[in-house]
Amino acid sequence: MSIRSHFSAHRVLITAGILVAACVSPVKSPQAQSLGELQTSSTPLVLKAQGSFFVGGEKVEQTKGELGNLGPGGHITVNQMYVRYMVPQQGGNLPMVLVHGATLTGKTWETTPDGRMGWDEYFVRKGYPVYIPDQVGRGRSGFNQGPFNNVRAGAATPASQPELFRFSDENVWTNFRFGPKPGVAFDDNQFPVAALDELSKQAVPDLNRGLPTPTPTIKALSSLATQLNGAVLVGHSQSGSFPLAAALLDPKVTKALVLVEPGTCPANYTDDQVKALATVPVLVVFGDHRTNPTGLPTLPTWQARFEECQKLIERLKTAGGDAQMLDPADRGIRGNTHMIMQDRNSLQIADLILQWLSERAGKQGARQ
Amino acid sequence: MSIRSHFSAHRVLITAGILVAACVSPVKSPQAQSLGELQTSSTPLVLKAQGSFFVGGEKVEQTKGELGNLGPGGHITVNQMYVRYMVPQQGGNLPMVLVHGATLTGKTWETTPDGRMGWDEYFVRKGYPVYIPDQVGRGRSGFNQGPFNNVRAGAATPASQPELFRFSDENVWTNFRFGPKPGVAFDDNQFPVAALDELSKQAVPDLNRGLPTPTPTIKALSSLATQLNGAVLVGHSQSGSFPLAAALLDPKVTKALVLVEPGTCPANYTDDQVKALATVPVLVVFGDHRTNPTGLPTLPTWQARFEECQKLIERLKTAGGDAQMLDPADRGIRGNTHMIMQDRNSLQIADLILQWLSERAGKQGARQ
Repeated sequence: MSIRSHFSAHRVLITAGILVAACVSPVKSPQAQSLGELQTSSTPLVLKAQGSFFVGGEKVEQTKGELGNLGPGGHITVNQMYVRYMVPQQGGNLPMVLVHGATLTGKTWETTPDGRMGWDEYFVRKGYPVYIPDQVGRGRSGFNQGPFNNVRAGAATPASQPELFRFSDENVWTNFRFGPKPGVAFDDNQFPVAALDELSKQAVPDLNRGLPTPTPTIKALSSLATQLNGAVLVGHSQSGSFPLAAALLDPKVTKALVLVEPGTCPANYTDDQVKALATVPVLVVFGDHRTNPTGLPTLPTWQARFEECQKLIERLKTAGGDAQMLDPADRGIRGNTHMIMQDRNSLQIADLILQWLSERAGKQGARQ
Repeated sequence: MSIRSHFSAHRVLITAGILVAACVSPVKSPQAQSLGELQTSSTPLVLKAQGSFFVGGEKVEQTKGELGNLGPGGHITVNQMYVRYMVPQQGGNLPMVLVHGATLTGKTWETTPDGRMGWDEYFVRKGYPVYIPDQVGRGRSGFNQGPFNNVRAGAATPASQPELFRFSDENVWTNFRFGPKPGVAFDDNQFPVAALDELSKQAVPDLNRGLPTPTPTIKALSSLATQLNGAVLVGHSQSGSFPLAAALLDPKVTKALVLVEPGTCPANYTDDQVKALATVPVLVVFGDHRTNPTGLPTLPTWQARFEECQKLIERLKTAGGDAQMLDPADRGIRGNTHMIMQDRNSLQIADLILQWLSERAGKQGARQ
């Protein structure tokens, strides 16, 4: 009960800007909210298969100390990528691989913070097999604990230990573009901010700064697409450019690339790289409020990222590619955020992506 | 390809004891194995619902440094518990909550290392809604990165940082009782040791030594059972006693407790606690080879744990409880291991548990 009180007090604190709305309905504890508000579809989900597996990984030998003094030294696996999948009974569409962004896990694509169906299930219901990884170094993919234990034991300098980063709730308000400042939502904001505490729970420490460069996730994505005999790669935010990088390893197995609010569209690709990427259809998706209409200096980068992606799209088109920007605001759909797959109109956005996809990437060939 | 070569070499190394078997069939890379060998059931899985949510969690305020220098200081959530669920279209049985053991995640209960159906799907197919958490501090539940970043920045002493422990592959051979020493399987061993590299990938760093005592997972399990209007709690190894601890918080919502290879059956319960626990049916499940038939001093503890649990069972029965030991060897089923839910006869063991359960815990009342 003490946690419940703590949460309620906090919610009032951080949502001071929308306090009027918060006062209209009783403030619920996040615990009660999460299970009680889960929505169930009126039609069953019929799966041919579901389960999980790993892609990639390397063996390393560690000392007793590196293993946290649990038994003697020995071998462990690092840099593996966990993948959960659902294959619809009816379908035969290309598999889709959905990769999450910074400080998050595959949970990004599952049930939304306010209990609605995630893109994972929606795409399956539309006939697409769906594969959801946790990036290497995060969530169920685990990470290499050796460097941390060495520092703890005095066997390595503290600075040698990777920095683990994480967004604060306050940072999320502006950086994910729910509003111009913490607690104040844009008038047309599409993110369910009343369930923001549930998004906060999705965050885990991000180890990407401590991983090999480029992150092993990229090779694992390419390997997964190969094993699937071709797949659509979808990245978000931090992983927004991963589909491009994976495609460069083997463009043939990447049947389409969807970059959702990418943190970057690299400007330094060579002409040969652009030529290779131009063989794969590319869709870039951005939400609204990329510049700050209030004039507050809280949102400096998203419009710059949007423009960087426009430039890449132009390069791909010049090289004969099929590349396109999906900006829902162009269609009168306003208020979408960085967490567009969790926005209230998330399935409307999903439909726009599926429409683009169905016009380009055909049914799967060899498999199924 | 270098990873593939590396793995092959390693497999020969660590499976020297079963080298004859390994040489008969070509050695596959774990990457190719994991997806290519996934087995698909001949009948579809029909779900009323699936998704994920969180239970519990607390807000803490952190400095810029504690957040890994990603924006200014602010609030984050810690000690939340991620839960994935599947509800069968047909069923109406009590929900089952399956909790994993040390250095592992909810992956424990999903697809087995050699690609067979996990207990998660099997129980759903038998009409039970299934809820799979990641323990607080692990996997998709995340952990508090603040203490680590403080050490890195010199703001705290290295020794203040939690130790992160993990089993080595070699340790697993004996501690999980696949065989008397690394690379040598018991003649009747039920674990699919040819897929041992896939089990190795399931391991993640275990932060439990750095969590509050008792772990917040226990309160979250009780809260989950309350929200579900009653549930069967299943623990394994490290979490083997968690169902007991959760039941003590509110015995009414724990409809049955299944302790799979528990790391402990506490001997220090008061008579009042035993009386409370005696209101809930309890099943303890242990695998084979708890003492080492070869006489090697590698397996000192499992028979002791078994005997400790037998004593608790006797205390519960004396207090009027319905408590029972399931030792498959008593029924002529030999060679089961600590990872009994992944053993080759895992569904045979599942059936024994479901039989016990169906005789005790009735259909769900208020829900569904």
